[in-house]
Amino acid sequence: MTEDGLTATTGPGRTPPTDPGRHLTSPTTRSALRIQHQLLSSAREYLRGHGFTELLPPIIGPVTDPGARGSKQVDIDFYGHRYKLMTSAILYKQASLLAFDKIFCIAPNVRLEPLETAGTSRHLAEFHQLDVEVAGADRDEAVQLVEDLVVHTVAATVRELPKDFAELGRDVGAFTELLKGSFGRMRHSEAVAELRGAGHPQSPDAELDWAGEALLSSRRDRPLFVTDYPKGSRGFYDRECPEQPGLLRNFDLLAPEGYGELCSGSQRTNDYADIVTRMRETGENPQKYRWYLDLVREGVPASAGFGIGVERLTRYVAGLDAVWQASAFPKLAGVVSP
Amino acid sequence: MTEDGLTATTGPGRTPPTDPGRHLTSPTTRSALRIQHQLLSSAREYLRGHGFTELLPPIIGPVTDPGARGSKQVDIDFYGHRYKLMTSAILYKQASLLAFDKIFCIAPNVRLEPLETAGTSRHLAEFHQLDVEVAGADRDEAVQLVEDLVVHTVAATVRELPKDFAELGRDVGAFTELLKGSFGRMRHSEAVAELRGAGHPQSPDAELDWAGEALLSSRRDRPLFVTDYPKGSRGFYDRECPEQPGLLRNFDLLAPEGYGELCSGSQRTNDYADIVTRMRETGENPQKYRWYLDLVREGVPASAGFGIGVERLTRYVAGLDAVWQASAFPKLAGVVSP
Repeated sequence: MTEDGLTATTGPGRTPPTDPGRHLTSPTTRSALRIQHQLLSSAREYLRGHGFTELLPPIIGPVTDPGARGSKQVDIDFYGHRYKLMTSAILYKQASLLAFDKIFCIAPNVRLEPLETAGTSRHLAEFHQLDVEVAGADRDEAVQLVEDLVVHTVAATVRELPKDFAELGRDVGAFTELLKGSFGRMRHSEAVAELRGAGHPQSPDAELDWAGEALLSSRRDRPLFVTDYPKGSRGFYDRECPEQPGLLRNFDLLAPEGYGELCSGSQRTNDYADIVTRMRETGENPQKYRWYLDLVREGVPASAGFGIGVERLTRYVAGLDAVWQASAFPKLAGVVSP
Repeated sequence: MTEDGLTATTGPGRTPPTDPGRHLTSPTTRSALRIQHQLLSSAREYLRGHGFTELLPPIIGPVTDPGARGSKQVDIDFYGHRYKLMTSAILYKQASLLAFDKIFCIAPNVRLEPLETAGTSRHLAEFHQLDVEVAGADRDEAVQLVEDLVVHTVAATVRELPKDFAELGRDVGAFTELLKGSFGRMRHSEAVAELRGAGHPQSPDAELDWAGEALLSSRRDRPLFVTDYPKGSRGFYDRECPEQPGLLRNFDLLAPEGYGELCSGSQRTNDYADIVTRMRETGENPQKYRWYLDLVREGVPASAGFGIGVERLTRYVAGLDAVWQASAFPKLAGVVSP
């Protein structure tokens, strides 16, 4: 057992905390949560200074994002109606642009991930996203905003919390390239070629798999944007590229050092007929999305946006072995805990 | 129909929004949400400046606060285990003091209120609390912190958003007494006497009822703390007064002008045997609270804290007819909406 009540494993992750008291009193937890608070404070400061309004997102609703790969949604009974816990705020972010051109929220999400994810060191069944949406923006403007936001928040956190980085043994030299704002960029097709060249059997028609993301991430010393994922790998709301049908105007951000995915985003589809077609292509029943489709038919702004995984960003910045160390009350697939 | 898609009623409230698009594009909604963002930004600034760490609260767990009067909890299936949606963060706030002496969170809560509350103008089935907890504090220190926090946030909002107050027709002269920091204070027993004197049949052994709170509130031009509620009217975590058994070291804050309750708080019980006894007295099965009781037995700090209803505070400050106007996607009892 380590000082925070955990059993070390042979892999990069560790087993989940079996003792909430030891987890909460661990110096690692305290430093990780202080870093998380600073990252979110700095993100709020940056976004507010750039004209964004923060909204409080709903946690339940008649439908939620169907795009979460491999995980199950949670049903609830809302006065006799079947509602869902939010797996992502995407539908609400598009709708919120009717009120404000630039919005963000810190959104809680629940995704019942497969049981085997309890040991991946990067999945939580309950987590948060820093969700941002900008009316009128395109994909490349969203990518630039992610870069600016990450540079600003990491710089502030390194500046404000030297004792916590020392406590965690996290060398802030790891952020040298990041703080220069020189993030890498490659297309999904280029990522596939690199992975295949390295002997990893990545499908060109699918989302990058976990091992592939980790491999790309571990080969780099700065964050990497991967863009233009193929249609079929993402939700109905990612806009298809008119010049290159079959590719989506979307992106992921991967951390360096093997920490993997931090953020997903895209330019959005806001055309009613396109959305209904894409829903059908992805196996979704448009009837379920009535309130959303009603709004889209009346007209919602064109936009781009993204969601940054708050616990994953914290894990990367704090240099933690596992993402659950970035949560005060972590919930892992199949594990009963507070 | 009014400009924001609402049907006016004869009472102080209005019927819920039937058209999310009209609600989101209403100038009233925009001003209300800007005021809410400013209130929360100012609260964060104040608390951060006073040494508090913000945490991201869980939205699901094995148990939640049983103290919500009259409302039902929402069950979910978490990998075959029966979990609840949070009705309040109270148990997690006490536990979090193992990590930090001063914590706060903006916590989403879901309470399935009775159907008749859809028209009260002050209930939402989904809402947020600004939840604060301070290790080592007593009830009176918590009361003082609420007062300081409300004065700071309202002052900043009045200063920053004059156009929104003008848009809403909210005369900021309503805050003259509040901004002086001269909040009223009375005991529950005195509140009962005042209500009975005014012809309202308030029980001396119970929580103040809605009509009673509204009556006290409507007779005042400044916020009012009501303290020392009788045992039996509140949850097991409110500490009993050792000098006056049967009274609790707790409080509510009522807004003036008839807006009613904004905040509830208390000094907490942190003694294992006391908590188990109080659970049994309030009809709760201690077996359900295993993780919490295990932590309490190992020792959690003495503390005091409170939760401010974010949408209720917004309603009062913005001078809105109904609390749902302070939510982008309001959920009312029994009403299907986004």
